[in-house]
Amino acid sequence: MVSFESDYIAGAHPEILRRLEETNMEHLPGYGSDRYCDSAKEKIRRAVGMEDADVEFLTGGTQTNAVIISALLPDYAGVVSAVTGHVNAHEAGAIEYTGHKVLPLLAKEGKISSADLKCYLSDFYADASHEHMVIPGMVYISYPTEYGTLYTKDELTEISGICREFEIPLFIDGARLGYGLMSHKCDITLPELAELCDVFYIGGTKVGALCGEAVVFTKGNKPLHFLTIVKKRGALLAKGRLLGVQFDTLFTDDLYFKISRHAIDMAEKLKDILKERGLQFHIDSPTNQQFVILENEQIKKLREKVAFEFWEKKDETHTVVRFATAWSTTEEDLKTLKEALSRI
Amino acid sequence: MVSFESDYIAGAHPEILRRLEETNMEHLPGYGSDRYCDSAKEKIRRAVGMEDADVEFLTGGTQTNAVIISALLPDYAGVVSAVTGHVNAHEAGAIEYTGHKVLPLLAKEGKISSADLKCYLSDFYADASHEHMVIPGMVYISYPTEYGTLYTKDELTEISGICREFEIPLFIDGARLGYGLMSHKCDITLPELAELCDVFYIGGTKVGALCGEAVVFTKGNKPLHFLTIVKKRGALLAKGRLLGVQFDTLFTDDLYFKISRHAIDMAEKLKDILKERGLQFHIDSPTNQQFVILENEQIKKLREKVAFEFWEKKDETHTVVRFATAWSTTEEDLKTLKEALSRI
Amino acid sequence: MVSFESDYIAGAHPEILRRLEETNMEHLPGYGSDRYCDSAKEKIRRAVGMEDADVEFLTGGTQTNAVIISALLPDYAGVVSAVTGHVNAHEAGAIEYTGHKVLPLLAKEGKISSADLKCYLSDFYADASHEHMVIPGMVYISYPTEYGTLYTKDELTEISGICREFEIPLFIDGARLGYGLMSHKCDITLPELAELCDVFYIGGTKVGALCGEAVVFTKGNKPLHFLTIVKKRGALLAKGRLLGVQFDTLFTDDLYFKISRHAIDMAEKLKDILKERGLQFHIDSPTNQQFVILENEQIKKLREKVAFEFWEKKDETHTVVRFATAWSTTEEDLKTLKEALSRI
Amino acid sequence: MVSFESDYIAGAHPEILRRLEETNMEHLPGYGSDRYCDSAKEKIRRAVGMEDADVEFLTGGTQTNAVIISALLPDYAGVVSAVTGHVNAHEAGAIEYTGHKVLPLLAKEGKISSADLKCYLSDFYADASHEHMVIPGMVYISYPTEYGTLYTKDELTEISGICREFEIPLFIDGARLGYGLMSHKCDITLPELAELCDVFYIGGTKVGALCGEAVVFTKGNKPLHFLTIVKKRGALLAKGRLLGVQFDTLFTDDLYFKISRHAIDMAEKLKDILKERGLQFHIDSPTNQQFVILENEQIKKLREKVAFEFWEKKDETHTVVRFATAWSTTEEDLKTLKEALSRI
Repeated sequence: MVSFESDYIAGAHPEILRRLEETNMEHLPGYGSDRYCDSAKEKIRRAVGMEDADVEFLTGGTQTNAVIISALLPDYAGVVSAVTGHVNAHEAGAIEYTGHKVLPLLAKEGKISSADLKCYLSDFYADASHEHMVIPGMVYISYPTEYGTLYTKDELTEISGICREFEIPLFIDGARLGYGLMSHKCDITLPELAELCDVFYIGGTKVGALCGEAVVFTKGNKPLHFLTIVKKRGALLAKGRLLGVQFDTLFTDDLYFKISRHAIDMAEKLKDILKERGLQFHIDSPTNQQFVILENEQIKKLREKVAFEFWEKKDETHTVVRFATAWSTTEEDLKTLKEALSRI
Repeated sequence: MVSFESDYIAGAHPEILRRLEETNMEHLPGYGSDRYCDSAKEKIRRAVGMEDADVEFLTGGTQTNAVIISALLPDYAGVVSAVTGHVNAHEAGAIEYTGHKVLPLLAKEGKISSADLKCYLSDFYADASHEHMVIPGMVYISYPTEYGTLYTKDELTEISGICREFEIPLFIDGARLGYGLMSHKCDITLPELAELCDVFYIGGTKVGALCGEAVVFTKGNKPLHFLTIVKKRGALLAKGRLLGVQFDTLFTDDLYFKISRHAIDMAEKLKDILKERGLQFHIDSPTNQQFVILENEQIKKLREKVAFEFWEKKDETHTVVRFATAWSTTEEDLKTLKEALSRI
Repeated sequence: MVSFESDYIAGAHPEILRRLEETNMEHLPGYGSDRYCDSAKEKIRRAVGMEDADVEFLTGGTQTNAVIISALLPDYAGVVSAVTGHVNAHEAGAIEYTGHKVLPLLAKEGKISSADLKCYLSDFYADASHEHMVIPGMVYISYPTEYGTLYTKDELTEISGICREFEIPLFIDGARLGYGLMSHKCDITLPELAELCDVFYIGGTKVGALCGEAVVFTKGNKPLHFLTIVKKRGALLAKGRLLGVQFDTLFTDDLYFKISRHAIDMAEKLKDILKERGLQFHIDSPTNQQFVILENEQIKKLREKVAFEFWEKKDETHTVVRFATAWSTTEEDLKTLKEALSRI
Repeated sequence: MVSFESDYIAGAHPEILRRLEETNMEHLPGYGSDRYCDSAKEKIRRAVGMEDADVEFLTGGTQTNAVIISALLPDYAGVVSAVTGHVNAHEAGAIEYTGHKVLPLLAKEGKISSADLKCYLSDFYADASHEHMVIPGMVYISYPTEYGTLYTKDELTEISGICREFEIPLFIDGARLGYGLMSHKCDITLPELAELCDVFYIGGTKVGALCGEAVVFTKGNKPLHFLTIVKKRGALLAKGRLLGVQFDTLFTDDLYFKISRHAIDMAEKLKDILKERGLQFHIDSPTNQQFVILENEQIKKLREKVAFEFWEKKDETHTVVRFATAWSTTEEDLKTLKEALSRI
């Protein structure tokens, strides 16, 4: 069965497997101190255009969000997020497990507005009883968002400016960063994005790797004893090489960007197929996730041939579903989907 | 440089990489619900001799210890461990991070005695103020221990009996389980070990995998909503296939046991080399970790050719060091070590 | 200066101080095992009409909410609360500090509706990815709410029924319980309220005590080793007598209810004064908290004579403020307020 | 029955109750912002001889230890304590509940030695794998210790020096501080003690108050947003006046020191009684706690007339028990004890 269920339905990009095999029997030290981690970090610093950035590897998205947020937030603080943000909605309470509240802000198509953010922060400090509330200590946004949408450079610049005004860091969840940067609607470069925020990560799990996220601290703000902090959270991989080799491969010859671009190309074709089939879009997404409204009966039939994700109930007889392309999506996959759609 | 620094200096067993490649482009669902996870679980249940055991995969040892201990301990309870136990000594406080105390018990060569355990538990409940103390809610032991030693079947049976008497679960950390079971001194089978405890895990990271530990709940005691509990701790891998394929491979044709046996064979040869060189052993270990005492000057010279681990200071001029074999150790590695030892 | 700032601006009811003095030099055991705690528990069980209820004393409201919620929630679960609920809005993240998420539900005048609750819970389990989300494990409501409003008996019965249908406990925050039960709009008795929920508390801090909340577990559901759980959270008072004597006094000769009734009487007079002054009410509250809209200039002037609380910004020139009566409010206080209001 | 069970068997010093009554009906703001808190802080700063010290009030000892330790420790760090320290042995895991490990150090009669401390810290940083361990981030000692013993000024100076060398704060648990400072063996003043440490507290619960501990930050090191941090832990008292009035009274006319001295005088007489009765002391304690060895049969008989505390089993037929005097102990109490002892 062909699957558009998510962007992690396949294994790793073949070049990654090749490099894992090539380096497999080398004796390497553990916990990220091997030469491949070093090399990958160097390549990422170059891609980000910051020679002093601190780069660290973690295994998955929820883990990365929980580690970074809890390591950077002061004790008394919480993290501001779109109500639809992954940390607020779909991480089983991983942030709260670290003892910190997620402070939800209304969102439109996955995005918070700088006006709402400013208003929230100003009102917070205007409230006489604010010391009895959770103090906003960080802003979290996703690029692209959970709805596939993108902040414009102007929007990011404004949000970044507000964070600086209130002296709290801006953290960008880049679980799908490649799919954002390679979108035709993207108007920002990786170095520009890095400059605007204080910490972000480059998602590997959804963009060609078996697992792995590369965290980039852009302002000399990597917490002291970060390795201990990571281990304390059960997030330190013994064979750090697994992450090092993967990111070293992804950042050799622009592989990360090339395969991200491929996913976007496939997404554009997917959109065409969905449009031609006359389906109604739930959102206008310029990245690899596409959301359309199907009749519940159609869903039942389509599931026989194609895997895809339930997103949310629309009404009694209709449901929003998501189709995701990825680095691994093929023309053949699209063809199968098209045929299946024609029969429902 | 040849390395005996730990049992995770190489990548994965080649057969694992082959299977990862073979299955790489299959479309599979995430989070451990793929067919390879299912197959691996079935094979592990068979190896354990318990058709009803619940098997779950996690990524690394510290993570597994923290997830299992915190998921099984009641709120008011702590976990009893040898003072030298990994959870007490070398996990950066990962158990305490979950809000639970490690209750250290004196240990000899890494092992707690059933007499000490019984005494501790009896005295605890005899203390009138015990409700003001952390209530022992689980016993944690390692097999093999952090010193390479093994509990005998009799010892395990006694410890298990005490746990049942006090109605608390026995958890066995099997990060190096294969190296214990394949030791010439091992007098217990995997099904017997499984029967004696309530939960244990089969280490993959140190025994042929890139990462991964297989947790086995042996008494119908898998916590409700375990997936949510795992995700909440940032420990849920999106591409569960990475763990499924690896354990499916390790438990096909007894690969796990064969490669563990190889490491033991290499360890026996290593012992001979160390003995022939006239080195003094710190401990008599029947598994893959060997501890000898070197002069600090010797260490300096040996480090030029061989990587190995500092264990502990012996006196001003001597240090205990550890050499570990693994599934990946070759005759060539041993030869290199032997030569290097002859020159210090 | 006269203060209507909150319901804890005075010390304790004089009878409480008298009893503290009377019993002061008695030698009593600590941690709630003294005879006054026993007696108070017995009197509360009688008032609640449940001879088997478990009663425990804690020191303050936020502490009680955090202890009870974290002690009763399973690891994987969060607590559903009105978005305006005290645990969500004004406790500095005390629930999240225990590792659990507050799941906010839209509220009207401080109250959640049973329809919204049912919808939320049904939708939750209908969502295919709900295992990746925080599982609702308890419903928290306040009686009276943070806006002074009251659930009707019918509303409570419906909410209670939904909780039973979904097999999760209903927890009622009764920090101001007396002021709710003694309201002219209250249509439920204490035994009825106790029956409908699984755990609730009778607030002392805001109703005549120096400090103290009496938690009532109504369904044989007091967590095992509760004393240890309380101590682990730093919430166990050494001199438990301080809580025992206070609640023993409050539940002797219906003192708790009599002084609550007094506060309601004062609140009714306060409402008359505010109405006569022509002020606009923000909410129609039948309990001891009254919310009116003042011009910012009026606030400035009034503050010179009277203390009261900023509630929320209404618009650029108007603000919602709160006046609270309590067991300690006097006719004299009201007179002073009336005069001060006439001059702004 | 007369009780020597602990130092909190009576209520409050009568002068405290008198002041509570006197101020009872004043309208005061909450959460420690009232004039009595201000006045008490000022008096404590004077007693401590540090006009810039930050003083904060908390309710009990375990709570204070957990709040201060967790608020001052960095994420990656644990607190070093005597293995017999209250935080390690008798607080139900309250420190671990905040996510931090207690790092136990061997102790003699409740005291750690500066040599052991120095050795521990040096060895820690010498260990190549120390980043995988809990990093010592604070030293906790009790003055007096849980065994009633006292550090000399020289010992404290050495411990303080080591803490400064390793750049970690020294925290002194002064739950019984008065009984230490008023001991005939005490060779240090309150200002000297304050100077040597970074934070300490002056125990009220055991020294005349109904509840309350006064924390003193001596080096400008009060954590930012401390009120929020306290509230987040459920430790913020609404009626802060309860703590303010008590400490204001205790630090008026040296009441705290006078009543502490009385307890010491009573303890000296108690020692004489125990000696005259020919009982064997378990420890030579110069403060208010006295430890003697009784036959189990004697204990049984004595319990009919006197309450005292089981301390630890000595052998099959003997037990160590504790008798504590306090500010409230009377000559009459001692006489009753003496008579009871003569009959066993």
